[in-house]
Amino acid sequence: MTVGEEITLEQLPLREDLRGGSPYGAPQLDVPIRLNTNENPYPPPPELVADVAEAVRREVESLHRYPDRDAVALREDLADYLSVSTRVVLSGANLWAANGSNEVLQQILQAFGGPGRTALGFEPSYSMHPIISAGTRTDWVPAPRRADFSLDTEAAARVVRERRPDIVFVTSPNNPTGGSIPLDGLRGVLEAAPGIVVVDEAYAEFSSQPSAVELLAEFPARLIVSRTMSKAFAFAGGRLGYLAAAPAIIDALQLVRLPYHLSKLTQAAARAALRHADATLASVHKLAAERDRVVESLLGLGFTPVPSDANFVLFGRFADAPASWKSYVDHGVLIRDVGIEGHLRVTIGTPEENDAFLEASKEISR
Amino acid sequence: MTVGEEITLEQLPLREDLRGGSPYGAPQLDVPIRLNTNENPYPPPPELVADVAEAVRREVESLHRYPDRDAVALREDLADYLSVSTRVVLSGANLWAANGSNEVLQQILQAFGGPGRTALGFEPSYSMHPIISAGTRTDWVPAPRRADFSLDTEAAARVVRERRPDIVFVTSPNNPTGGSIPLDGLRGVLEAAPGIVVVDEAYAEFSSQPSAVELLAEFPARLIVSRTMSKAFAFAGGRLGYLAAAPAIIDALQLVRLPYHLSKLTQAAARAALRHADATLASVHKLAAERDRVVESLLGLGFTPVPSDANFVLFGRFADAPASWKSYVDHGVLIRDVGIEGHLRVTIGTPEENDAFLEASKEISR
Repeated sequence: MTVGEEITLEQLPLREDLRGGSPYGAPQLDVPIRLNTNENPYPPPPELVADVAEAVRREVESLHRYPDRDAVALREDLADYLSVSTRVVLSGANLWAANGSNEVLQQILQAFGGPGRTALGFEPSYSMHPIISAGTRTDWVPAPRRADFSLDTEAAARVVRERRPDIVFVTSPNNPTGGSIPLDGLRGVLEAAPGIVVVDEAYAEFSSQPSAVELLAEFPARLIVSRTMSKAFAFAGGRLGYLAAAPAIIDALQLVRLPYHLSKLTQAAARAALRHADATLASVHKLAAERDRVVESLLGLGFTPVPSDANFVLFGRFADAPASWKSYVDHGVLIRDVGIEGHLRVTIGTPEENDAFLEASKEISR
Repeated sequence: MTVGEEITLEQLPLREDLRGGSPYGAPQLDVPIRLNTNENPYPPPPELVADVAEAVRREVESLHRYPDRDAVALREDLADYLSVSTRVVLSGANLWAANGSNEVLQQILQAFGGPGRTALGFEPSYSMHPIISAGTRTDWVPAPRRADFSLDTEAAARVVRERRPDIVFVTSPNNPTGGSIPLDGLRGVLEAAPGIVVVDEAYAEFSSQPSAVELLAEFPARLIVSRTMSKAFAFAGGRLGYLAAAPAIIDALQLVRLPYHLSKLTQAAARAALRHADATLASVHKLAAERDRVVESLLGLGFTPVPSDANFVLFGRFADAPASWKSYVDHGVLIRDVGIEGHLRVTIGTPEENDAFLEASKEISR
């Protein structure tokens, strides 16, 4: 007998807009091959494990004290990493970090969105964008992509000019479809936008396109580039999202962030992981090569994979995608039904995991 | 030259209600004795440091994978701790956790507050309650305490009945004034409330009053008891807040929580710290005894300390509290000006720190 178990959700004074909803999240099933949440399949190398563990141990000794509220050292390290990888010189004043890019995005919406304001995104895209918009009571304006899921940036700039959203989300590479947007296309959207443009680069390290960070100097009052350590950095369990923007935008986010939002453990672990960037990012090249192999193989099996710059591939066509998703599970392979008719999304795993996925695909394609 | 530094906050499309604000947070000054943020002054004992470090090290090995989204094991451990300390049997289904109690409170406001809804609190109290209400666009309704800062629970029930807020905050022990509220007084407020009542028990372990957890079975559709590991557990740097409520309330919070909000490191470190609860909580008794000594000494020096059940003491009277706060800093002691006229708040430290504070008080009282 659990205290209060007689009360149901329907009896609670929940906000009307939340009634009938269900929590966001991919099914977590106990299946041998899990290629459903775009994690990096390579565990951290032993020297990174040792370094993170030692950095965290030192912090535990002063765990009775609050962390640095402004995460200054971590933000400087993130600036160094981005400066090297994008060749745009950034300082810690250009960086902000939170518990996963979802919290970064929530803070952006709290500062620049909210009731009476609108956010626009080009669907299908990262489904947390409309969810976090709803969570901050920002009206969501869906805009279309081409039938092949690529973004027509001229049409995108036009719709932004017409609808005048307070915030525009552009995901590059796009999740769950995989394509990146060239800087010239982004520039058109930025020129059209009356407010903030968030370029969500969660998968940027897997892409051959340059980063939108290169446009920061040109659009300092509009552009925010969000990133995560979950994917390329193999740090999904550590929860570290960040962004690059003009210092005034960081000042704005500090007005809405919860004080001490980033623990000492998170700050220390992320800094230690950044010291091993070269080793961790080596897996990115392996994964990009595997992605290209998976795409080729899927083509050979008669599937139609969507061109991808990320560590996942959206592919079709299935007469009944939910039924095919279940067939993959029956073959011991967990992929993702992202709700796009006739399509499923597979995360690129190790060569062995990808072989198992391709073997299952072969049987399912029969 | 920092990218985008020519842009000022005023040039950004910030929400109107945020304009002119400044980030929440106590000044972090480099002063020998820091008694300003209600931290536990005792560092974690070596066996806890070793256990937390080892638990975290094991998690680092799988940091490329997302954490348990529902933090099931941690919630069960928190239920066990609360069951023992309150003698009310709770299960993991009654518990919820987030990155500090601020995030717990924010999720409560997102689910049950928001635009068009109101939250009421008895001031002066924890200043994050109105700030997080504003952050979620929940209208804040301030209600008074007695002149001696205690809560007149009959008057409180009356104002709740009149104003009909969607959420009522009751802080017990109250921060920054220190007094607890007996269960009978809380019961009157709960009977009057049309919606949710959050009893914020961040400092409960320091109090001799029973926990509001004892009222959960009586008010399952209304009562939420929030807690933190920051104070008694000496875990401020680890950021772990939690709450106890009916399972349906936890279901409601899962509709607004960001997915994977609690990292593997946070979950593992908190679980390890909970295994050392007995050792850590031993410091609570020392601190309560020191608190009583500090109150006595302040009385002896001619100050008027407010009776406290927490690990801090609000005391007066100062003709000019901000000037006196500065005098303490000049004596090497950082305490807190919480904005209550004629008063300052001191956190109880080690006996040596308290002696230094009392010595400074003696000089300042001259």
